[in-house]
Amino acid sequence: MTEKAGRMVVTPWEVSGRIDYDRLVREFGVKRIDARLKKRLERHTGPLHHLLRRDIFFAHMYLDEILDAIERGEKVYLYTGRAPSGPVHLGHAVPWMLNRWLQERLKVTLIFQIPDEEKTLFKEGVTFKDTERWTRENILDIIAMGFDPELTRIVVDTRHADLMYKTACEVASKTTASTAKALFGLKDSDNVGKYFYTCMQSVPAFLPSIIEGKPTRCLIPCAIDQDVHFRLTRDVAPRLGYPKPGTILCRFLPALSGEGKLSSSDTNIAMTDDERTVRKKVMKHAFSGGKDTVEEHRKHGGDPDADMAYQWLTFFEPDDAKLKRIHDDYKAGKILSGELKQLLVDTLVPMMRAHQARREAAGKDVEKFMIR
Amino acid sequence: MTEKAGRMVVTPWEVSGRIDYDRLVREFGVKRIDARLKKRLERHTGPLHHLLRRDIFFAHMYLDEILDAIERGEKVYLYTGRAPSGPVHLGHAVPWMLNRWLQERLKVTLIFQIPDEEKTLFKEGVTFKDTERWTRENILDIIAMGFDPELTRIVVDTRHADLMYKTACEVASKTTASTAKALFGLKDSDNVGKYFYTCMQSVPAFLPSIIEGKPTRCLIPCAIDQDVHFRLTRDVAPRLGYPKPGTILCRFLPALSGEGKLSSSDTNIAMTDDERTVRKKVMKHAFSGGKDTVEEHRKHGGDPDADMAYQWLTFFEPDDAKLKRIHDDYKAGKILSGELKQLLVDTLVPMMRAHQARREAAGKDVEKFMIR
Repeated sequence: MTEKAGRMVVTPWEVSGRIDYDRLVREFGVKRIDARLKKRLERHTGPLHHLLRRDIFFAHMYLDEILDAIERGEKVYLYTGRAPSGPVHLGHAVPWMLNRWLQERLKVTLIFQIPDEEKTLFKEGVTFKDTERWTRENILDIIAMGFDPELTRIVVDTRHADLMYKTACEVASKTTASTAKALFGLKDSDNVGKYFYTCMQSVPAFLPSIIEGKPTRCLIPCAIDQDVHFRLTRDVAPRLGYPKPGTILCRFLPALSGEGKLSSSDTNIAMTDDERTVRKKVMKHAFSGGKDTVEEHRKHGGDPDADMAYQWLTFFEPDDAKLKRIHDDYKAGKILSGELKQLLVDTLVPMMRAHQARREAAGKDVEKFMIR
Repeated sequence: MTEKAGRMVVTPWEVSGRIDYDRLVREFGVKRIDARLKKRLERHTGPLHHLLRRDIFFAHMYLDEILDAIERGEKVYLYTGRAPSGPVHLGHAVPWMLNRWLQERLKVTLIFQIPDEEKTLFKEGVTFKDTERWTRENILDIIAMGFDPELTRIVVDTRHADLMYKTACEVASKTTASTAKALFGLKDSDNVGKYFYTCMQSVPAFLPSIIEGKPTRCLIPCAIDQDVHFRLTRDVAPRLGYPKPGTILCRFLPALSGEGKLSSSDTNIAMTDDERTVRKKVMKHAFSGGKDTVEEHRKHGGDPDADMAYQWLTFFEPDDAKLKRIHDDYKAGKILSGELKQLLVDTLVPMMRAHQARREAAGKDVEKFMIR
C-alpha cells in the first residue's frame, strides 16, 4: 500500500506516516486475531506472550489451519527473516521475540531466511561487499535472541541458493510481471531482480514441504509490511502443490520520536547499543505524553497513549501488572515523563545486556545454526 | 529479432523462416569473421576447424580482444550451454564441436552451463520433473563430445545456484524490465522468471573472473540466436567490473526438410538415433537439390546449395577435398540425389556411432565434469 499524498506508506521497503491498522487489515485482506483464536492458540502454547495479549500481534491469515494441523499431530514449521543492511534495531527484534516463544512453546523448527540480495536489488549503490558484513553481524543478533540451535535453520539466499533457486523458479513461473507490478508498485524502469525477489521470499514457506517430503504447514510471524510477499505465496502455493502458509502479523514498533515504523536512523536503538547510548537516546528522543510543566503534569497527568516511552514498554515490559501500574500512575500524574523514560531504560538495559552477552558468545555457533 | 509477418524469427526460443544472416549481422550489431581474423586465430590454433574455414562460424564480437589476452599470456575461458528439454540433435552439437576444438587447441577451460530452469520458465506446463531426465541425458551427450574432463566444468543452474545466484543478482541490479522487454520481447503478462533468466545466462561469462580472482576474458562459441543474452552481458560487464565476453557465432544447421534452424521434431536427427533411423530420416526427409528425373539430373546436374544432404555435409564432413569433389560431381550430375544422401549417411553414421560409444561410457564420468 503506497499512498504518499495521504501520508501512510506500508510496503516491505517503506513504512511511514500515521499507521491506520484497521485500514491495513481491510486493504491487505487479513483477519484480526480475536479472543476465540487467542484461546485456541493458548491451548497449545500455554499463557500467551505479552505481544499477543496486548494485540501487538493483531492480525493473521490461516492461523486456524495451522492449529488444525497441530491438532492432527502434523509437523508445522515457523518462518521469519531479516534482510541485512545495518544493525538490528529493537523494532526488528519484536517479531523475533514471538518466533522464539512459539518455537519454544510448540517445539517447532524455525526457518530463518537472510535475503542478503535484497539491498543490492533495492538500494542504489549497495553491493554485496557492503551487505556481507551485516549478514555476519545480523546473524549474531539472531542467535543472541535465544533460538534453539536444534530447531533453527538459517538460510542465506546467496549461500544456500542451491536449496532455493529451483523452487523460486517454480514460483516465478506462476507470477507475472503484472502481478509483481500490482503488488509491489514496480515500474518498467525497475530492475528485473526486484521482480524476481519476491519468489525467493516464497521459498522458505515451501521448504518445510520439501524437507519433510509431504505437504507441511508453515506459520510466518512477521511485521505486517511483509504480508504482501505472502499474499503472493498463498496465491501460488496450491498451483505448485504446497499448502498455503499462515501468517501472524504485528504492528510496527513506533519510532521513539513518534509516528511510523522504527526506521534505521540515529534516534533508534540498536541491539548492540551500550547502556549510555540507550539512556541518551530514550532521554533525548522519546516523544513525551507529559504536560509542559511539572505542576500541570502532577495536576492533569500524562497521556500514555501518546507517550513513546510508555508505548515501547508495551512492547518490552512483559509484566502486565507492572505495566498497568505505570500506565495508571503516569495518567494520574504520579510518574513524571522523565521518570517514565527511566522506567523504559530500566526495562531495556537488562534485556539488551543479556542479549549482548549472548551475542558475544554467538560467533562459535554460527555454523550450527546454518541449514547446511 | 521477431518479425513473424516477414517470416524470419530469431530469438533464443524460436528460429524460423528463411534466415538472412546479413540482416542478423546488421541488426544484432555483430561483426563478420574476416580473413585477417581467421589468420590471427590460426596462429594460435593451427589449421582452422572446417566450421571456421567454411564460415559456418561466421560472426563474432571481441574475438580480437580474446586473442590480445592470449597473446599477453593471460588465461581465457570458453563458455557455452545447453537448456535441457529433449534429446540433443545434430544441430545442437555444431557449436559444441567448435568448443571442443578450441578447448583442445588453446588448452583452455570450458564452462558448460545447463540452464535447467529454462523450460519451466518458458514452456507452459513443463516442470522440473520433466527436465530432470533431460538434464541427465544431455550431460551424457556433452561428455560424449569428447571434452577434456580436466578442462571442463559443467554448471547446472539449480544445482549450482549457490555459485551463480549472487552474480545473477548483480547483473539483475543493472538490468531494467524495460531492457528485458526490448531484448526478449517480453510482456507484462510474462512471468517474472523470464525477466530474471537472462541474468543467469550472464553469470558463466563472469565466473572466469570470479574463479581467477582477477578480470579474465571469456569467449562464447554459440549459435547466433543466443547473441541477445550476451549483448546484455556486454552492456552490464563494465558496470560490474568484469571484462566484456567475446562471442563467436554460428549459423543454424538447417532442418533436413529445408529452411530454418533444426527444430526438435521427428524429422531431425538425435545424437542417440541408431543407424537405421539416421538412414531413414535422411533418405525420407532431406530436401533434394536434384532434378525431377534421373535423365534430367544426369544432363543438367543438381543444385548443392539447395540440397540439404549437401548442406549438412558442409557441417559434418571435415575433408575439404572430398566435399569439393561431392559438390562438383553433384553439380555435374555425376552423383544422384539418392547417392548424395547416402554420402551424408556415410559421414554421419561413423561419427554418431563413435559418439554413442563414448556416451555409453560417460555415465561414470558425470561427477568428474561437474564444477563441484
